[in-house]
Amino acid sequence: MFDQRRPFTFKLDEDGVVKPYAKKFEWRLSDLKPFFYDKKLVERMLSRGSDPLIYETYWPSWETVEGVIGTGTEIIHPGKIGDEYYHSRGHFHEKAINSEFYVGVKGHGRMLLQSPEGEVVVISMEPNEIAYVPPGWGHRAVNVGRERMCCQFVWLLDSGHNYQVIEEGGFLKLLLERDGKPTLVDNPLHGK
Amino acid sequence: MFDQRRPFTFKLDEDGVVKPYAKKFEWRLSDLKPFFYDKKLVERMLSRGSDPLIYETYWPSWETVEGVIGTGTEIIHPGKIGDEYYHSRGHFHEKAINSEFYVGVKGHGRMLLQSPEGEVVVISMEPNEIAYVPPGWGHRAVNVGRERMCCQFVWLLDSGHNYQVIEEGGFLKLLLERDGKPTLVDNPLHGK
Repeated sequence: MFDQRRPFTFKLDEDGVVKPYAKKFEWRLSDLKPFFYDKKLVERMLSRGSDPLIYETYWPSWETVEGVIGTGTEIIHPGKIGDEYYHSRGHFHEKAINSEFYVGVKGHGRMLLQSPEGEVVVISMEPNEIAYVPPGWGHRAVNVGRERMCCQFVWLLDSGHNYQVIEEGGFLKLLLERDGKPTLVDNPLHGK
Repeated sequence: MFDQRRPFTFKLDEDGVVKPYAKKFEWRLSDLKPFFYDKKLVERMLSRGSDPLIYETYWPSWETVEGVIGTGTEIIHPGKIGDEYYHSRGHFHEKAINSEFYVGVKGHGRMLLQSPEGEVVVISMEPNEIAYVPPGWGHRAVNVGRERMCCQFVWLLDSGHNYQVIEEGGFLKLLLERDGKPTLVDNPLHGK
């Protein structure tokens, strides 16, 4: 087993999955109800028994200490809930001075980011690109393509994940499909 | 120019060079005299006018703050000084709780590491491998192949670099060629 107090070589498979990993999580629509805006569609799908796998994460087993940089892998499947592309939950860091970055490995990714002041920005996360998340910015990975979007995340183990802001109405803007293209649109759940 | 307070996408070229980069450093043998053990050979080479390029580093322009993870690229050329493979200087972190890791991109890399207690370990850093450097361990990248060894380093901006330990006699063991193979050997400069 991996002991983070000693030198160690991980391997990256063709999807960018860091091996050995200790934990794999699967996120289905039923786990992500607060994170898609079209609540009626979500309920309709689930009541019909449609509960698609939206994304997966792979984690080596890290012990949370200050000063250690961890890495793991996220794979977002292709698809949309209505016009909203499949995406991860997204989070802010509890330790707001901590940055993060994501390395694109496969597919067509975008990173949706929101500043503490409410500015929303989308940046590219294609293969061989690094999407840099500055301290304090909430961030969510989005798959805007028709194949799996694989990326490797690089974060500080003591960052902490704050999902509350995202659950309470979500990002101020969303990445939706408009005329076949990913487009930043005001989140209809805000201002209601 | 890159502003680390805002979201940003870097591109990785085929050598793993992070673009845009702000600074490139070239390290020749004349810059690295304290870091190779065969001092007589080094002086003989330099007096003959032979001053080979050993390695290069590429750095986006980062402002040193706590909590931000930086990345840059190291390319070590193939070659040896006598039986000692070309390598980077190697360093310990001034902030000893900070880890680091290196992602192998091209060629055949090894990471030579030394613990605060003087244990020396070599780990693999081939393409699609991540060499993890635990907190407190000094580390040096070594090219044991016949082509360039390219890797991407991922570190905390506030780590600080301590080269003093390495300059004062160097690592306790070195990675030398023996019977055509990289072999960990006691550093002849110690115990003299």
